[in-house]
Amino acid sequence: MSNLVEMGKKAKEAAVVLATLSTPVKNKALLASADALMAAKEDILAKNKEDVDAALANGIKGAFIDRLTLTDARVADMADGLRQVAKLDDPVGEVLSMKKLDNGLVVGQKRVPMGVIGIIFEARPNVTADAFGLCLKAGSAVILRGGKEAFKTNHAVVNAIRAALKAEGLPEDAVQMVPDTSRETANEMMRLNGYLDVLIPRGGAGLINSVVQNSTVPVIQTGVGNCHVYVDESADFEKAAKIVINAKTQRPGVCNACESLLVHEKIAEDFLPAVGRALQEKKVEIRGDEATQKLVDGSIAATEEDWGTEYADYILSTRVVKDLDEAIAHIRKYSTGHSEAIVTENYTNAQRFLNEVDAAAVYVNASTRFTDGGQFGFGAEIGISTQKLHARGPMGLKELTTTKYIIYGDGQIRE
Amino acid sequence: MSNLVEMGKKAKEAAVVLATLSTPVKNKALLASADALMAAKEDILAKNKEDVDAALANGIKGAFIDRLTLTDARVADMADGLRQVAKLDDPVGEVLSMKKLDNGLVVGQKRVPMGVIGIIFEARPNVTADAFGLCLKAGSAVILRGGKEAFKTNHAVVNAIRAALKAEGLPEDAVQMVPDTSRETANEMMRLNGYLDVLIPRGGAGLINSVVQNSTVPVIQTGVGNCHVYVDESADFEKAAKIVINAKTQRPGVCNACESLLVHEKIAEDFLPAVGRALQEKKVEIRGDEATQKLVDGSIAATEEDWGTEYADYILSTRVVKDLDEAIAHIRKYSTGHSEAIVTENYTNAQRFLNEVDAAAVYVNASTRFTDGGQFGFGAEIGISTQKLHARGPMGLKELTTTKYIIYGDGQIRE
Repeated sequence: MSNLVEMGKKAKEAAVVLATLSTPVKNKALLASADALMAAKEDILAKNKEDVDAALANGIKGAFIDRLTLTDARVADMADGLRQVAKLDDPVGEVLSMKKLDNGLVVGQKRVPMGVIGIIFEARPNVTADAFGLCLKAGSAVILRGGKEAFKTNHAVVNAIRAALKAEGLPEDAVQMVPDTSRETANEMMRLNGYLDVLIPRGGAGLINSVVQNSTVPVIQTGVGNCHVYVDESADFEKAAKIVINAKTQRPGVCNACESLLVHEKIAEDFLPAVGRALQEKKVEIRGDEATQKLVDGSIAATEEDWGTEYADYILSTRVVKDLDEAIAHIRKYSTGHSEAIVTENYTNAQRFLNEVDAAAVYVNASTRFTDGGQFGFGAEIGISTQKLHARGPMGLKELTTTKYIIYGDGQIRE
Repeated sequence: MSNLVEMGKKAKEAAVVLATLSTPVKNKALLASADALMAAKEDILAKNKEDVDAALANGIKGAFIDRLTLTDARVADMADGLRQVAKLDDPVGEVLSMKKLDNGLVVGQKRVPMGVIGIIFEARPNVTADAFGLCLKAGSAVILRGGKEAFKTNHAVVNAIRAALKAEGLPEDAVQMVPDTSRETANEMMRLNGYLDVLIPRGGAGLINSVVQNSTVPVIQTGVGNCHVYVDESADFEKAAKIVINAKTQRPGVCNACESLLVHEKIAEDFLPAVGRALQEKKVEIRGDEATQKLVDGSIAATEEDWGTEYADYILSTRVVKDLDEAIAHIRKYSTGHSEAIVTENYTNAQRFLNEVDAAAVYVNASTRFTDGGQFGFGAEIGISTQKLHARGPMGLKELTTTKYIIYGDGQIRE
């Protein structure tokens, strides 16, 4: 029996216990885990320094090192994150509907824990604590496979939490980490049917695609966002400029940032030059179609590849379109189904965009940057689903649960 | 470009049109399709005779031939099925929630069509019309891959429906059939990511397992049911006997039939001999543990394999258990998570069974045979999900949809 099957069995056993824990017991465990992270801070930071030094020695630099690096404040944030989850409503046990059938059977649909959740993620060690917290509150066990560069850090975090769970008299296998970060182990995790109820990849397009291609366990795809803002003929220019600049530059590295700007041809001459300059002042490179290149000095030509690219960087592809139909057709062709926005003062166009654009979140007159569990009021999120099954858009505690039918009878049989 | 990619593109184009059709237009198309099936009855029956003759010539017999064979009445049932779907509430467009955030954004969650649904099924040709009807009403296009033995029949059914759609001015590619029933084509269908939003296998364990193992498209597993009835110490014997006999014998070939009986040891001597005899009178073979064999004359020994087997036949595995804990542990080990029942008059045991047994449907004092979209009042069903993602239990029209967030803003940007 492989390590992973053994881990799967332990996780299932833990999940049986977790499924029926009361809310106060789960909350106490979350607070104890937060305290344990703070108590283990020096150890976690020491292990993190080893990870960071090794990454630097391997020539890794820039934003990746920043994501990998923990500080006093970031460890405190991880602990605070667990305390926040303790404050959220417990999703387990809610009865979504209940009705009496003609034969007297009472059929209810009840929210219950998923069971065992697998999460495969990349550099950020804070995902370790976040994912544990959300899964525990949702009554499920979690098996984590983080990035290889953060392996020691993740281990230190998980060990602190497991010790806290044990001290609380709860199953420490509520959270487990795979024994190594090899590709073989990752592939084995993706095929752990019968033990994992769902697998959630968090990271770049490469990771997510690999999980979709290789997993036989049900997957929730997250995150890839080639998000568009379409500025309609009737747009309020001031709103439009603010929204485009915010969606592109407020945090370009995230999945709900705008990657592509579409502008109605009737307003392109009046709108694009100024907004182009404003974006360039914020170091955004404009890659445009021919019309855009004529209107925005310093813009370069967009290739076919640009229209489909999630830059996650200070780059914006820009195209002038004939009308709303052409904008919707362009979005239909290149969208990853994450977040799409129209800026318009026209009622019918707003409604058409909301109805006809097929994405997790569709906006009228607002920045795409709001697609986020925290912003939507979920309190926390495990990721943003870009698939249509089970959950679509930001996933909070409810999206980490499933349902079951409970049926109260009085001897009914089927005729 | 392969045939299937071409079909996928056509289905996506059709789905764009279907997504925004009004309810009356969809209902009219369903009624027209029903009429078309009746008008094409002679052709459908002729093609079905060719399929049945070929199957008989290949040595196929028994229940399989029965499932494959259409009659006047069965074609009329297919047409009536479409008329029933026309009467069901349209699930598309329902706003599940809507709230205003502090920043003034109004965030709603709206039920929208899935897009393109794939269905892989086995012998019954009626699935062709049923699946089309449910998918159309849910605003999605469907690509079908039926069993090879019913290929000509399915083609005749699909052709009649496509002609009806065309006459209604609707996209005939709302329903398409794969060009052949080869394994290669099936495998290609399972990897049609980007075109298929979900794939639903309907059939035996072999088919479902093959789809789970090979599909990179999100799958909803359906159907396999190793369902238990546990008769508790405090059970009302009359209710218990009725429920066990009904769950086992009312229709043994279906997934919600009982396959395994668990009896509390304190009542085994009083309960089992009589119920065993009653089952045997209905031609049920009892395969029991040692205690059962002592109590039920003519029963034979159950092997380890029996406990995990969905017989779909007149066979019942039977075990005497020490208490509720042992019953729940047995079910946890062998259940496929479909339907599980307890017969008890004890309040706490009923609640424990409902809470601790992890299955799509959990019953107190009723037959497992009620797990069915029609029985639960959904009007129709596309299958019974035994997985935890997206849908669990009977799947009706709502379960064939997804959601999207719609956000009404007034120029909001993220700070």
